[in-house]
Amino acid sequence: MSKKLTKREDDYSKWYNELVIKADLAENSGVRGMMVIKPYGYAIWEKMQAELDKMFKETGHENAYFPLLIPKSYFSKEASHVDGFAKECAVVTHYRLKTSEDGKEIVVDETAKLEEELIVRPTSETIIWDSYRKWIQSYRDLPLLINQWANVVRWEMRTRLFLRTAEFLWQEGHTAHATKQEAIVEAKKMQGVYADFAENFMAMPVIKGYKSESERFAGALDTYTIEALMQDGKALQAGTSHFLGQNFAKAFDVKFTTKEGKQEYVWATSWGVSTRLMGALVMTHSDDYGLVLPPKLAPIQLVIVPIHRSEEQLEEINAKVEIMVVALRKRGISVKYDNRTTHKPGWKFAEYELKGVPLRIAIGPRDIENNTVELARRDLLTKEIISQDGIEDKIATLLDEIQESLYTKALNYRNSLITKVDSFEAFKDVLENKGGFVSAHWDGTAETEEKIKNQTKATIRCIALDAVEEEGTCILTGKKSSKRVLFAKAY
Amino acid sequence: MSKKLTKREDDYSKWYNELVIKADLAENSGVRGMMVIKPYGYAIWEKMQAELDKMFKETGHENAYFPLLIPKSYFSKEASHVDGFAKECAVVTHYRLKTSEDGKEIVVDETAKLEEELIVRPTSETIIWDSYRKWIQSYRDLPLLINQWANVVRWEMRTRLFLRTAEFLWQEGHTAHATKQEAIVEAKKMQGVYADFAENFMAMPVIKGYKSESERFAGALDTYTIEALMQDGKALQAGTSHFLGQNFAKAFDVKFTTKEGKQEYVWATSWGVSTRLMGALVMTHSDDYGLVLPPKLAPIQLVIVPIHRSEEQLEEINAKVEIMVVALRKRGISVKYDNRTTHKPGWKFAEYELKGVPLRIAIGPRDIENNTVELARRDLLTKEIISQDGIEDKIATLLDEIQESLYTKALNYRNSLITKVDSFEAFKDVLENKGGFVSAHWDGTAETEEKIKNQTKATIRCIALDAVEEEGTCILTGKKSSKRVLFAKAY
Repeated sequence: MSKKLTKREDDYSKWYNELVIKADLAENSGVRGMMVIKPYGYAIWEKMQAELDKMFKETGHENAYFPLLIPKSYFSKEASHVDGFAKECAVVTHYRLKTSEDGKEIVVDETAKLEEELIVRPTSETIIWDSYRKWIQSYRDLPLLINQWANVVRWEMRTRLFLRTAEFLWQEGHTAHATKQEAIVEAKKMQGVYADFAENFMAMPVIKGYKSESERFAGALDTYTIEALMQDGKALQAGTSHFLGQNFAKAFDVKFTTKEGKQEYVWATSWGVSTRLMGALVMTHSDDYGLVLPPKLAPIQLVIVPIHRSEEQLEEINAKVEIMVVALRKRGISVKYDNRTTHKPGWKFAEYELKGVPLRIAIGPRDIENNTVELARRDLLTKEIISQDGIEDKIATLLDEIQESLYTKALNYRNSLITKVDSFEAFKDVLENKGGFVSAHWDGTAETEEKIKNQTKATIRCIALDAVEEEGTCILTGKKSSKRVLFAKAY
Repeated sequence: MSKKLTKREDDYSKWYNELVIKADLAENSGVRGMMVIKPYGYAIWEKMQAELDKMFKETGHENAYFPLLIPKSYFSKEASHVDGFAKECAVVTHYRLKTSEDGKEIVVDETAKLEEELIVRPTSETIIWDSYRKWIQSYRDLPLLINQWANVVRWEMRTRLFLRTAEFLWQEGHTAHATKQEAIVEAKKMQGVYADFAENFMAMPVIKGYKSESERFAGALDTYTIEALMQDGKALQAGTSHFLGQNFAKAFDVKFTTKEGKQEYVWATSWGVSTRLMGALVMTHSDDYGLVLPPKLAPIQLVIVPIHRSEEQLEEINAKVEIMVVALRKRGISVKYDNRTTHKPGWKFAEYELKGVPLRIAIGPRDIENNTVELARRDLLTKEIISQDGIEDKIATLLDEIQESLYTKALNYRNSLITKVDSFEAFKDVLENKGGFVSAHWDGTAETEEKIKNQTKATIRCIALDAVEEEGTCILTGKKSSKRVLFAKAY
């Protein structure tokens, strides 16, 4: 297979699809819309999971696990939730197969039909709140701060690796609180955790905001979101956190006794991020040569490749590198020494470039003589000759620098693509010719939002948390508006 | 809810069920046979996962993720596998629900019927080998050493929390090799990893052996197993590792080019342990007062409870304990200080006893005066007064000692329940009156195995790897036998 990628400017979408497959992140399976996450892709996801899990635990959350299959009737209990989720889903109707009468194939055993169909979870609010009814009696049981790492299934018709798949991996937090205020604080806090993770680990700048009513999660009173911008000028919703009010508590009859002895319904939040973040990571930093990974999430931070002609030269290099590797690992750097003789150095260079390894060292006989190595930086595609002395400090510093630099680059790009407009003409012009976020006045109605979407394919990504009060008129209707909102075409 | 448990000698099965629920490990959900793993139970499972994952990586394995849903036809490709697995399973037949015509409920949309039914994975050999066909071309691609952490569904009719549930969590390793010998070495190596984990982390002695033909995994040529003994004298299969020969390679047409340029089928293994280990852990060490957890898997290793009358006393104790906690955590000890004033010390003592926290410190005003604490050990239910000086070393040593002591106790118990018999009368007598493993000669036929099972409910748990060659006669048929095998009634 050729390692050469389609160029981003030629076909961004094709570039993405090729890159995900060629860099061994994921591939399509024999099951429609469901992907296989390959070891290299999964190793990045594990790093994401580990960091997020740590952040959730530091903010007081515990993990638990709830059933994969949810009785159909559970979904009907929360009216707006069922509309949003119980439609395109995998439905389990039978619990047995049998050999066909001619003995040639296996078929569904019609006598093993379930009394009530079970839905493969598209999200777990209903089954979790059915449990919370048993767990919560008194204010002493609150807050209840639970997270679940799980797989979910949504029967998407058009799928793309990581970005939209029929099955995906995610975490879903589900919390219960004694007061409305506390639940809102929690929902915002988790939005903050997501933003922190996106910016400090993925090196991906995000805008924190809340959703317009029509873009809210089915069953939420408010949806807080973090929105990122991809290199093609399209926005990507990277994580959401929902204030659910008392909707699920009422649907599942979850009440608690207050300190004063009164019975009240519990207040809820839920929040999640998924393997979609893998798609966002790829699209934020990578280039025409392959992946570019921020060091904090790179499974391999530094690869070392020996350059040699003879066996003796290789042995000499091996001896030197072994000492180097020990020092680097001790410094906490994840390093791979690839001294396979089945592949040429050039092949290895291309391979690790494609896979986004942040730093590469090449070391040959002349380097052994001169006490040097050749160090290449993946993000800038630069090379320099450096001394072997104190190399672990140099590498550690450089990894920090790369992490920072990727963020700054993405931030500058993102900021250059937030455009204020005050007319619908200008709005359409920016969407068509520049892309990115368009900051515009909107009259606050779902009707106008829908019309703009139909005419331009742009949706309201969010109302930024830091949006300032400002008198203005809606770009479409000319009606009064007090705040700009952010529109964009989105993934 | 009363914290008092049924006594083990009165009703072991009831004791287990009560304990799992009262100690907040898991509970039944609204979905038949599927459990909710509660935060305390999940915290133990996370510790198991972390250790196992580390061991898998140290032995060269990488994690990946494959689809939850498997096309029905995949199962038919490996003949013996389909008989074993594709029968009692959750079958997805539709991909959409809709609102009923009267608008009152949601129903299956009959127009959204899948062309081919999808099975919720009961195990993943088929979907994984379907991928391996694409991943393996040459000897250079081998060995392929992959593990997956996942949920699986098997439609069990009689379920018990952790021990047998319709959905459970597990890991499944799936490896591909160039030679038969290498695959057998891998299968045995992973059996060794499981035994190491069981003994050194769960403090649960196991017998390493292989299965008789009728007890093998569906599709395996050999199944290696680790077998543990519970406190009621019943055996529990704690983990299995299978040598699959070329069965799946042939079923999914996975060939590779050898170094010599020939095309050959790949050799395979698979191996797994599940949340069933949670049940084994509970049943190996716990007593009539609640859980007893080995320190290496205890989410809380030490709990500290203040004993005070006045607010001032509590403040004084808090100040002292804070310093202690810092020193303990620095020593790597997982410690909880429970100074809630909503619960009395007696309540707390009972709670942490029930939850199996290995060590408990009580500290009151007199301890502050005397520079002492009262230290209680969960496994022996003993107490002693010790000095606060160097307490972190004392605790660390004691945790090691408890880990060791639990293992020794379980080992002595297990060894006392391996009984050699040479007649069917003696065999039945031991099974009925003593329990445990019965070491007996067997003629090697499935027919005899079946007859013994029907008459006594005992099955061949394994042929121990270290079984010695010994002339003998089958306890049932009197036919010649060259080795003893281990029978037991089992979970």
